[in-house]
Parts: sequence; C-alpha cells; structure tokens
Amino acid sequence: MFKSAVFNLQEATPDQVKEFLNSFDTVLSDCDGVLWINNNAIPGSPEAMNYFRKLGKRIFYVTNNSTKIRSDFAVKAQELGFIAEPEEILSTAYLVAHYLKGIGFTKKVYLVGSNGIGDELKAVGIRHFGVGPDQVKPDFKSMSPSDMDPEVGAVVVGFDEHISYPKFMKAASYLANEDCLFVATNTDERFPKSSSIIIPGTGTLVRAVETCSERKALVLGKPNDYVRKFLESFGLDPARTLMIGDRCNTDIEFGVRCGFQTLLVMTGVTSAKDLEKIRNDKTPPLPDVVLPKLGDILNLTSS
Amino acid sequence: MFKSAVFNLQEATPDQVKEFLNSFDTVLSDCDGVLWINNNAIPGSPEAMNYFRKLGKRIFYVTNNSTKIRSDFAVKAQELGFIAEPEEILSTAYLVAHYLKGIGFTKKVYLVGSNGIGDELKAVGIRHFGVGPDQVKPDFKSMSPSDMDPEVGAVVVGFDEHISYPKFMKAASYLANEDCLFVATNTDERFPKSSSIIIPGTGTLVRAVETCSERKALVLGKPNDYVRKFLESFGLDPARTLMIGDRCNTDIEFGVRCGFQTLLVMTGVTSAKDLEKIRNDKTPPLPDVVLPKLGDILNLTSS
Repeated sequence: MFKSAVFNLQEATPDQVKEFLNSFDTVLSDCDGVLWINNNAIPGSPEAMNYFRKLGKRIFYVTNNSTKIRSDFAVKAQELGFIAEPEEILSTAYLVAHYLKGIGFTKKVYLVGSNGIGDELKAVGIRHFGVGPDQVKPDFKSMSPSDMDPEVGAVVVGFDEHISYPKFMKAASYLANEDCLFVATNTDERFPKSSSIIIPGTGTLVRAVETCSERKALVLGKPNDYVRKFLESFGLDPARTLMIGDRCNTDIEFGVRCGFQTLLVMTGVTSAKDLEKIRNDKTPPLPDVVLPKLGDILNLTSS
Repeated sequence: MFKSAVFNLQEATPDQVKEFLNSFDTVLSDCDGVLWINNNAIPGSPEAMNYFRKLGKRIFYVTNNSTKIRSDFAVKAQELGFIAEPEEILSTAYLVAHYLKGIGFTKKVYLVGSNGIGDELKAVGIRHFGVGPDQVKPDFKSMSPSDMDPEVGAVVVGFDEHISYPKFMKAASYLANEDCLFVATNTDERFPKSSSIIIPGTGTLVRAVETCSERKALVLGKPNDYVRKFLESFGLDPARTLMIGDRCNTDIEFGVRCGFQTLLVMTGVTSAKDLEKIRNDKTPPLPDVVLPKLGDILNLTSS
C-alpha cells in the first residue's frame, strides 16, 4: 500500500492506518536513531515496538552496530523499556560470526573491531585477534613479514575506536593474499548526531581498508541483503515485512532491495531536508511511509 | 615523440635516444619508487638525474610525500647522491602551505599530518595544531562541542602515522561547517613495496575523512594539476617537460593531464603486469616511454 509516493502516516485516515497495520506480520527495526540515541530511548519508541508485539507481529532488531553481543543488546533494549530477546537481535557482530561459521571457516580472523564481534566469533569457535590498541614498536617502519600470523584467513572490519595506522597496515598486508577473506559489518558513514560533534561510523574504517588493500569488502550489514537471506531460512515473507529505519541509504535501501515495506522516521540521520534532496536526486530509494518519530504511530491508532 | 604507443626506450636507436633527450628542457621526477625506496637510492638513479642536470635540464623533485620540509628532502636527496636544492623540491607539504598562503588564509589549520606540513605552514605564518598522538579522555563519547576550536578554518589531511579515531571525529566535526576548507596532500593508496608488508598511503586517510565528513577534499598532489599551475608561474613549457614516475594513476596521469611527456620506470608501484592491465582497461593513461629503472638511460646514452 501507499506505493505511489512517500506518504506521511499522520495524514492517513483511521481506516488507512488500520490497513497499514494489517499489511505486515514481521517488523524489522533499526536501533540507533529509531529506538534510541546513545543510551536514551527516543520517547514513544518502546511503547510503539511493544504495541507491534501485542498485535502479534514478529519483532527483529536489525542493527549495523557491531560493538555488542546479542545478549548485551537485549539487555540494553530491555533497560530502555523494550521487550526483547537475544534471538531477536540481528546485529552485524552476530552476522559476521554466523556467516563465517556457515561457510566452514576454520582459520584465524584478524579483527579490526571490538569485543562485540570478538565474543560472537568466540561463541561459534572461531579464533581471532586484534581487538584493542595496537602499537608496532618502535614505529610502523619496523614491522616485518615475520610479524604476520600465517594462520589468518580473514580480515573483519567493524567499529573500532582504537583504529590506528598499524591496524590499517596489518589489514592491508593480510589482504594482499587473495585467499584472505575481507568481511565488513557495514558502511555507515556516521552515527546519528546528538550534537555538532560528528561520530564517524564503521564505513569510515571500511573505506580506508578498501583503499590500502585495493579490494572491496563483503558487507553483511544493511543495505546488503544478507539479513533477508538469513531470515528467509526462518520463513520470513518479504511482502508482509515492515522495515523501520532512520537512514535512506542503509535502512530504506535495504528494505527496498529485500522487497519489504519501509517506514522512515526522522529521529536519526536522514532529515526532512535530506528527504527533499533524495526526492530530487532519485537516489537512494525513498521510503513508502514516513513519521516524525516512531511513537507517533500510537496517536494514530488511538484516534 | 613516441606518441603512438608505449615505447621501451631500451629498444630505441641511438639517434632516437638523442632526439628524446633533446625533446625536453625540464625534468620533473617523482621520488619514492623512482629515485629511492625508503632510505636507499635505486641504483643508477642519482647518476641519471645528475646527468640530466649536466645536459642543462632544469630539475624538480615532485613528491606526494608530506612528511618532510623542503630543506630536509634536499638533504636526504644529497645524502643519497643527488644534486638537489630546497627550491627544487615540490613536496605536498610545501604545496599546502603555498596554496593556503596564496588564497590569503588567516585562520587556523586542524592538521591530520606530520611536522613536514606543520613546519611548512609555520614558515608562511599559518597557525596549526593536531600533529602527533591524540587522545580524547576518557573516550571519544566524552568529546563535546566546547572541545572544538572556533578559529579553525581548514582541515588539512596528509600522511599521519598517529591517525586515530578522535582525529577522524575532529576532522569530520570541523568539516561539518561548510566554510571550513578541506585540503589533502594526495590520494596515493600505498607506498611502493619493499616487502610483503603493505604501507598504506595518505589516500587511505583521505578516503576515511571524506567518508565521515561526506565531503570531497581539494587534492594538491599528483595527479591534480596544481603543480603545473605553480610551475607555469615560473615559465614552465609543458610541451618541453618530462615527468618521470613509477605510478600510472598518479605520476603518469599527472603528466598527461598537464601536457608533459611521460616516462614510467618499473622500480616502484606499477608493475609490468599492471601495465598490461592498464593497456587493456585504457585507464589510467599509459606513459609515452618506459624503462626498467631510471639508471638504464645511462647505458643507452653511452652505447
């Protein structure tokens, strides 16, 4: 429904809202910028997600964030007022581990990332190293081929606040071996803003490693459709699935690629001004429907 | 001459070599990968450059390396056996300072780079900060708008072995102001190889900052033609200028863009295999002539 143009749900009639709510069985929601920003729930989001659950929808939290394991994400969601189980969390840290295990990977991972990915890898029995600060002493010029671990068979790049020149050097050097896999969690340029300080996203690090390795990463997070393939094995019906997000170039593009319905909320990265620009540029895809914030849906259903 | 296809100078007749040597008055040579690798001269390169000088050619050392000031580059060249004066060194550190001074820049530079750029900026009276390790304590999430210096009017990105997440964050946050200039020394993906260890080049950092700032840098180094504009004010005749390099996508592309003759040597980044690929892909541009190493020209002239 509402396929002809971006539709502000607030302008829908009560019947249209009811029809919309009946049009999906599964809700996939992005987290940062839709449900919360940093450690604060966006007002109304917990109630809206819990309302979907009450209506009998299956819920999945689909996040490109790779800094936490699934159980920690579930705890964070619960503390902010969301009903959430670890099995409902599809974080990129989990997806990386699931992907590598799925292809029968048995070598070591050089990980440019955090313990979120490290712990998920460990949970499926995949060895890894690289988390935390790295220093090549006395300086990067002293690094030699004997410093490289010959057992490494994949470089994984996720969010890493300890990114450094030696890490770029090691990642590029492992990737010089064509048999070494190159997997990235996501390519988000930035995190949703909470002030004039820009928080660079994992895409900043992925583009850097792609540049010095002269290779392209396999990206498992949105807008890549790996999540759809993953969920289809659990019986997901794309046509009766709603993807909720705050970014047209990840969440909405992901939803459109996967054949889902899409809802954009304006509490994160994509602003009303951006949406206007996207409408003119015709790229990335536009959402089916928009809402100022996710919680607004509750006002529409009670009216 | 030799315009129809890539010509191996070693296959030229003595008359053709003589004609080639008479076809240019000015020699621009890249440094890393052509004249030296790390701190070792490539055998024959000092003698070849000094031979050009003896023939009365004007010599310029054109390097995308931004880690040294001009006088230090000249000392390095001299120690490796090259005749060289600081005024003949066109390094990107110098070009950044020359560019900013030329446009009347009076604000502060946030510098993701090394003392090479810092000292060149200082020499022209431009204030800067950012060189060396950076730590936002206790972590990046604690950085606030009050940590930003309102006097910053440009972000300059060069080679920085102390690159870190806080540096990306600061660069992107300054660049969120559209009036803030974004200048990069160069976009080289890697340094020339001396082992299986890949040494990421400045392009790795520039692409990262471009990603998180969602802006494109003004790049002053090769293949940008800023060097040609700079030299034309000194009376350079492009048609009688030879550009020597080891990389098709910087040195040779730069030479072709500027209307120079071009000579590729195989002692650095671009390999014979790469050259074959470039010949098929038709991008980046091919050189007019090739030599296995620069010093080989001496054998051709004495034969």
